[in-house]
Amino acid sequence: MNQPKIGIIMGSTSDWSTMKKACEVLDELGIDYEAKVVSAHRTPDEMFRYAEEVEGRGIKVIIAGAGGAAHLPGIVAAKTVCPVIGVPIQSSALNGLDSLLSIVQMPGGVPVATVAIGDAGAVNAGLLAAEILAIQEAEIKKRLNIRREEIRRRVIKESELS
Amino acid sequence: MNQPKIGIIMGSTSDWSTMKKACEVLDELGIDYEAKVVSAHRTPDEMFRYAEEVEGRGIKVIIAGAGGAAHLPGIVAAKTVCPVIGVPIQSSALNGLDSLLSIVQMPGGVPVATVAIGDAGAVNAGLLAAEILAIQEAEIKKRLNIRREEIRRRVIKESELS
Amino acid sequence: MNQPKIGIIMGSTSDWSTMKKACEVLDELGIDYEAKVVSAHRTPDEMFRYAEEVEGRGIKVIIAGAGGAAHLPGIVAAKTVCPVIGVPIQSSALNGLDSLLSIVQMPGGVPVATVAIGDAGAVNAGLLAAEILAIQEAEIKKRLNIRREEIRRRVIKESELS
Amino acid sequence: MNQPKIGIIMGSTSDWSTMKKACEVLDELGIDYEAKVVSAHRTPDEMFRYAEEVEGRGIKVIIAGAGGAAHLPGIVAAKTVCPVIGVPIQSSALNGLDSLLSIVQMPGGVPVATVAIGDAGAVNAGLLAAEILAIQEAEIKKRLNIRREEIRRRVIKESELS
Amino acid sequence: MNQPKIGIIMGSTSDWSTMKKACEVLDELGIDYEAKVVSAHRTPDEMFRYAEEVEGRGIKVIIAGAGGAAHLPGIVAAKTVCPVIGVPIQSSALNGLDSLLSIVQMPGGVPVATVAIGDAGAVNAGLLAAEILAIQEAEIKKRLNIRREEIRRRVIKESELS
Amino acid sequence: MNQPKIGIIMGSTSDWSTMKKACEVLDELGIDYEAKVVSAHRTPDEMFRYAEEVEGRGIKVIIAGAGGAAHLPGIVAAKTVCPVIGVPIQSSALNGLDSLLSIVQMPGGVPVATVAIGDAGAVNAGLLAAEILAIQEAEIKKRLNIRREEIRRRVIKESELS
Amino acid sequence: MNQPKIGIIMGSTSDWSTMKKACEVLDELGIDYEAKVVSAHRTPDEMFRYAEEVEGRGIKVIIAGAGGAAHLPGIVAAKTVCPVIGVPIQSSALNGLDSLLSIVQMPGGVPVATVAIGDAGAVNAGLLAAEILAIQEAEIKKRLNIRREEIRRRVIKESELS
Amino acid sequence: MNQPKIGIIMGSTSDWSTMKKACEVLDELGIDYEAKVVSAHRTPDEMFRYAEEVEGRGIKVIIAGAGGAAHLPGIVAAKTVCPVIGVPIQSSALNGLDSLLSIVQMPGGVPVATVAIGDAGAVNAGLLAAEILAIQEAEIKKRLNIRREEIRRRVIKESELS
Repeated sequence: MNQPKIGIIMGSTSDWSTMKKACEVLDELGIDYEAKVVSAHRTPDEMFRYAEEVEGRGIKVIIAGAGGAAHLPGIVAAKTVCPVIGVPIQSSALNGLDSLLSIVQMPGGVPVATVAIGDAGAVNAGLLAAEILAIQEAEIKKRLNIRREEIRRRVIKESELS
Repeated sequence: MNQPKIGIIMGSTSDWSTMKKACEVLDELGIDYEAKVVSAHRTPDEMFRYAEEVEGRGIKVIIAGAGGAAHLPGIVAAKTVCPVIGVPIQSSALNGLDSLLSIVQMPGGVPVATVAIGDAGAVNAGLLAAEILAIQEAEIKKRLNIRREEIRRRVIKESELS
Repeated sequence: MNQPKIGIIMGSTSDWSTMKKACEVLDELGIDYEAKVVSAHRTPDEMFRYAEEVEGRGIKVIIAGAGGAAHLPGIVAAKTVCPVIGVPIQSSALNGLDSLLSIVQMPGGVPVATVAIGDAGAVNAGLLAAEILAIQEAEIKKRLNIRREEIRRRVIKESELS
Repeated sequence: MNQPKIGIIMGSTSDWSTMKKACEVLDELGIDYEAKVVSAHRTPDEMFRYAEEVEGRGIKVIIAGAGGAAHLPGIVAAKTVCPVIGVPIQSSALNGLDSLLSIVQMPGGVPVATVAIGDAGAVNAGLLAAEILAIQEAEIKKRLNIRREEIRRRVIKESELS
Repeated sequence: MNQPKIGIIMGSTSDWSTMKKACEVLDELGIDYEAKVVSAHRTPDEMFRYAEEVEGRGIKVIIAGAGGAAHLPGIVAAKTVCPVIGVPIQSSALNGLDSLLSIVQMPGGVPVATVAIGDAGAVNAGLLAAEILAIQEAEIKKRLNIRREEIRRRVIKESELS
Repeated sequence: MNQPKIGIIMGSTSDWSTMKKACEVLDELGIDYEAKVVSAHRTPDEMFRYAEEVEGRGIKVIIAGAGGAAHLPGIVAAKTVCPVIGVPIQSSALNGLDSLLSIVQMPGGVPVATVAIGDAGAVNAGLLAAEILAIQEAEIKKRLNIRREEIRRRVIKESELS
Repeated sequence: MNQPKIGIIMGSTSDWSTMKKACEVLDELGIDYEAKVVSAHRTPDEMFRYAEEVEGRGIKVIIAGAGGAAHLPGIVAAKTVCPVIGVPIQSSALNGLDSLLSIVQMPGGVPVATVAIGDAGAVNAGLLAAEILAIQEAEIKKRLNIRREEIRRRVIKESELS
Repeated sequence: MNQPKIGIIMGSTSDWSTMKKACEVLDELGIDYEAKVVSAHRTPDEMFRYAEEVEGRGIKVIIAGAGGAAHLPGIVAAKTVCPVIGVPIQSSALNGLDSLLSIVQMPGGVPVATVAIGDAGAVNAGLLAAEILAIQEAEIKKRLNIRREEIRRRVIKESELS
């Protein structure tokens, strides 16, 4: 694998079943990434170190997934001016509404690009990271357009129901 | 003004008091943008045309603000693979919770980078757009880091309360 | 089948299990309809074309089902002055509250006739479409009244519990 | 005034400031209507009588506004197969969320065409009623299209912000 | 069975599994009741007749269960000055929050004594009805106190956990 | 004043502006009551003593208002088998949703008859208490029916709006 | 077992599966505790007696779990100046949102230290109680730090995912 | 002032009007504290340094207030085993529900003792901190009991309303 351009982090190994949807999208588009568990609450120093070193390692966009009182995306965003995409994990009691509000309601000054709760959000985090890279990489833009066109065709093909 | 790199759109002139916070951030960072009203519901054809032409005009990132049943960011995102940042406008009855859910809960395939409800969200939309451009423009990254440092110093200066 | 008078559209094939409840009601009442998948996000151009041509094909009422950030009913309503009935599909994380608010909270100028979340909503979408046609078709009004009377009798028959 | 085709009812005189927005739309479109207070809770017999006689008086569509535990639209809908449009009034404690859920979450069998909370909803109730009449009255359809076109032009005219 | 003093009604046979908890409490306390399905939306005339005749038949307290846009308790309460107890049935999409708000948020003038969502609420509806009768029937008050004492003892007996 | 039959308690003097609506209703109906502040959190022993002595003093029905984490109605209900009516006070941050859920979601075994949030709820608490007394006092029932009839007439008188 | 320093109480035996997570944490840290069912609604006198005697028995911190209209933590807190930690049990209809608001929204004057809904909250209640004891017991502080370090190592060990 | 035992931090100077309520309580009880702005998002390094040094400086309990995506209490709690009390600041759009969920829904392993939204929460944060210190300082316990008794007397004095 080449030097990864996307850093995927998540608060817990239990978030992996959601976050791997982001990885699958990036695999599909041929974009290199790294994925690891970095917990805002259980490994705060590692989170800080990750955020401090991430740009130097060539990472361009960070995708961070977390659930409940979801602090990982916001704190990483506070430590770097790389774009940070936040994925609210669907939590057990409040179905991810807590994750969503904890990620999206950032104060002015430190943005987190928030996507939908759960799997759809993880897919879209991968696509959004690709769209950001595509600004300077025409090849990725081409692949994104092809992917859209394929999905469009599939929908049209299956669209007659009655 | 040079060729704008950021396209700011909103569903109504009444969204302007919020969305101009994004403009102020871009002014501060010296990034050119255009701002106009494009309504998903009142000017759907203009919205489509905007989304179809936006990349050709050199726009790299779109910021779209809308309130209530907020469809503008999602539909524009469906028509382009430019990154689209969605700003939920604070609505009168439900305080922007409707705007937030209408923007952030996109299905897998079409991402919208959602920020906080209201003014803080608009500020962060401007900053997020800048962070995305900063991937390839070192000068913007420098300015973002200076801005953060200035804010940091201001907070530290005013931090003693008792 | 005759020229359909009701156009049923939905954002995804996964919405079909809900939306077919609307079809069953229309079958029961002997009203012709067409049903297809038209996605606001995955096939936006087809959605526009659908909305532009729907009146010309003799469709009188549109029923549109969508979930999550549910933009299909509102955008179709923005493109036609046919009555559009919106059915909020029960979403996985937020149980359809996101779908409901995305559909019902339309700005002044473009109405969507919103019904309940999920199956009950789809049944009622079929009935509401029939009630609208019944304004000029006495036969449909008769059938709606017969249907109500049958349900009334069934409830009365089963009403003694103790 | 001619025989009204639209019946506008509301649970309380305090709902009038919202519901008159529906009247203004109908005035603008030249559609005759009647408006009165009929309370599900304070005048239940009058509500029943209203619902029983409304079709006989030539009313084609009913618009019913109510707030809090908003029962008026649903009960009137249970008594007639005329299309009933429900307007959730913005309530004092819960901002109309109670009104919305009380109106929209109807069980399968008795539809209420629900619109947005508050003034925007009342405007749209008027427009939706007009769209329903427009199915058989080409003149109303023409006026609806003209109205949309005028709004579209106004939005375009005011759309340049920067 | 003697002349029942409590009238239990519910909007649908599907509410029976919840509402029979109220019956079980009344059986346990030796209080006669009747239970039937009376639907606000499917049998509105029967609902009205029920409410008009209920006092004449010797019913002292009404327990009404309903789900979703739950109008039964409020409309019955509007037709009689008997105390009406409302039981919010747990609905499928919104877990009974819609039922609760539709029942409890009654306007000033027509009270509904609302209890908890679901089974606990049905149990408490039975107990509340008994407490109301107990104001004039010392025997019921005695049984209510015995029942409380038994529960208290059971809790104390099982209270040591470690 | 005669021996009061209704005991009105509230958690704080700041609840008085809401709770006096219950008093006004009882004054209007000629029913004697007492009103005092008894706080579940600031005077728990007085709350217990109140609940233990209330029946002995001839009180038949208790009305308890509280806001936020509103524990007063439920704890008093745990200490007596008198009917307890709970009034959720409109709280500052969550508009009374916290008060409502804290009062209504009682476990099976200890009912609280919950009414609407705020002033309408207080009015209805007074009426519900009167309805309960009216089971054995025909004079109160008569007055309740007269009150309803007067309100009905007033609504009818003011009902023509257009 | 030595004289317990932590008193764990809960409203029902059904809360035990959640609350034993707090016990497991205390076992792990070697802190003595007692656990019992004390119900605010079914055994109010026992609850009062518990709160009155708890300090005299050497208990330093109380952990109280309850669900729905969760009054146990707040009322115990009203009867003692021992720190009281409240654990919102995940309720069946509203997923613990009712439990959370009933516990956390205490009025000024009587604090309850509220933790997360469900199992995670119970774990944290045990840890928070230990942190409070650790202020004066260096041995507990040492164990808390060791526990954190072990968790940190485990997270780091399992952190590489791709 | 002596060496402070309580450290009060908040995310912004705009939180001061709420957080000073905690200070007032501590002043009243004669407990020394320090208060400063430490922002999780604008001064993350200072936040880390604060959390790393706070125990060494003799601080026993930390009170942290934050609003919106409120990360300060949770991240400080991740860096120390001092008890951390979180105060959810009432936010502009969502009234502090976002602040509350961001603070209270911590994952198992890192507790935050959460209090009510807004001023009442800040008062209770001060009291809870005092209750924690009172475990080893009899003088503080005495003052807490006196304060309660004074409040109790004031409530009793003002309790007669009618």
